[in-house]
Amino acid sequence: MRSYQGWRKRMERKIVKEIKDRIEKANAISLISHERPDGDAIGSLIAMGLGIERIGKKVKLLSPDDVPEVYRFLKGTEKIEKLNQLWNERADICIFIDTANPSRLGNDINLKSLGKFIINIDHHIDNKRYGDINFVDPTASSTGELIYEILSQWENLITPEIADALYTAIVTDSGRFSYESTSYKTHLIAADLLSKGANKTIINKRIYEIKPFNVLKLIGEMLSRAQLAFGGKVIWSFITLESFEKHGVNLLDSEGFLQFLRMAEGIKLAILFREIERGKIRVSLRSTDKETKVREIATQFGGGGHEMAAGCTIEANLESAKELLFKSIEEKYGWKA
Amino acid sequence: MRSYQGWRKRMERKIVKEIKDRIEKANAISLISHERPDGDAIGSLIAMGLGIERIGKKVKLLSPDDVPEVYRFLKGTEKIEKLNQLWNERADICIFIDTANPSRLGNDINLKSLGKFIINIDHHIDNKRYGDINFVDPTASSTGELIYEILSQWENLITPEIADALYTAIVTDSGRFSYESTSYKTHLIAADLLSKGANKTIINKRIYEIKPFNVLKLIGEMLSRAQLAFGGKVIWSFITLESFEKHGVNLLDSEGFLQFLRMAEGIKLAILFREIERGKIRVSLRSTDKETKVREIATQFGGGGHEMAAGCTIEANLESAKELLFKSIEEKYGWKA
Repeated sequence: MRSYQGWRKRMERKIVKEIKDRIEKANAISLISHERPDGDAIGSLIAMGLGIERIGKKVKLLSPDDVPEVYRFLKGTEKIEKLNQLWNERADICIFIDTANPSRLGNDINLKSLGKFIINIDHHIDNKRYGDINFVDPTASSTGELIYEILSQWENLITPEIADALYTAIVTDSGRFSYESTSYKTHLIAADLLSKGANKTIINKRIYEIKPFNVLKLIGEMLSRAQLAFGGKVIWSFITLESFEKHGVNLLDSEGFLQFLRMAEGIKLAILFREIERGKIRVSLRSTDKETKVREIATQFGGGGHEMAAGCTIEANLESAKELLFKSIEEKYGWKA
Repeated sequence: MRSYQGWRKRMERKIVKEIKDRIEKANAISLISHERPDGDAIGSLIAMGLGIERIGKKVKLLSPDDVPEVYRFLKGTEKIEKLNQLWNERADICIFIDTANPSRLGNDINLKSLGKFIINIDHHIDNKRYGDINFVDPTASSTGELIYEILSQWENLITPEIADALYTAIVTDSGRFSYESTSYKTHLIAADLLSKGANKTIINKRIYEIKPFNVLKLIGEMLSRAQLAFGGKVIWSFITLESFEKHGVNLLDSEGFLQFLRMAEGIKLAILFREIERGKIRVSLRSTDKETKVREIATQFGGGGHEMAAGCTIEANLESAKELLFKSIEEKYGWKA
């Protein structure tokens, strides 16, 4: 059994001490995370912000986009200010959080206009190491793990609010402790955050378990309409304009529905067709293995995305959109319908 | 920060040592868990079974019901034999696992016909303490936590297969580390199980992300039939015998469907009615806050369970079962339909 104390010792990395020193010497500190922020971006940002505030420093929390509704229950999110081209305060230190590349701020931003000294804290493998200090650890489940490591340098700094923020960062970016990157360390940190007052029941509920009733009904409708194709390699379903209207659900509220189709056993690809307006179909593609790349299919129809998650819009009715897309799948993968 | 070593020390309870002694002195040992087994029942049963086998004892694993398809990927499940009235082997020790009441074996079973000495290991608050030794700890997230504690008494006993089984028990009964009963200990144990080789990626995928297509369709049907009651405090749905047959899904494979109803925003209680056979309805209740206790309601109808998750079987048709249960809810909580 690996020992908790031993792990605490190994955790005391030189670079973390260096970051602590820099923070203690600075007066004004800015913290920034990336556009379209996720749970790790928001949680890490506010945990670090609340922590630095507690040691008596002036701190600004910046984000190029609004905090998604689902994370607004976290204390500290109300402190986040909008970063845009007009921002002209230069801090002593600017800490970039969970941001692999400064281009992910969504603006042409001059790093040095944000801070005299740049600290880059991240767990993405493709991080560009653009900081004066780069604390980048791709073995961490989340940037939240690294922020925990930094804040643990100060005695008793982690309050229940900070523990909530860090727990949120970790639980979301580790896929509820399920992704490959989840390690024994991830659980040791979660253990410590719970003993410091993180309210895991509320957090899990807010993030994973609260769906408006009408959204849940529409998910049900989508699932009961699901069909297999290509000998079980593909699961697909659709939502008509009438269904959206009947349930009073809009397109944005149906983002993420694809995860329910993805649960199907044995499939390689899940597809959801959503009627945005008459004759205009939003197609979302999610592959379940690295071999089945979907971005190219989406780009064929003028869309884009990642290798395993992409989308496009096809100007056609549901039936034709499906036919066009299935033809493209047949050609690209050589699967038989 | 609570120390790992300190926790290991506190964990060494007298009763656990006593159980270890008893096991070491016995030759033939039977292990039994409850009917309609869930992840905690199956995971705890095979973890204990594989562990006892490793210390060179003859062991029988018994269950009144088949192992649900979803858990069959776990090594050791193939060792589980069917417990029925014809069973007539009497072991030196019979260990009851995750079984609050021997009646949960679903048969009129004479405890003493199963073993000369009965050990009762469980985390249900209403455990009947029917054993010669009762190791019952309602503060544990799962019986898996207690089995971990027992197996940890022997050096290097926990193999990757045992770690998989214990991780499964814990992750399922803690609701992926989200329920109230999840503690810092739960995460410390998970940390240790990962370092001993538990394959959390596979386990999470198999349990939470791989659903046979027909099961997914039935979930869809259940969700699209869902209704709110008691002014939005309750969400409920039902599955008829015809639906089960139409989709080729059995009762066991629909365990866990309630988690989808539970996602509804604002509810305090989710209820699923499942028609087991004509005139016999299985009722599953899951509350979303500590104030709404459901065990008492289930016991009114001869069932049982936890404060926040319980079930019972009502001999009636769907409509009458619903009426009876709703009446009991009205009386107990004072909610208006």
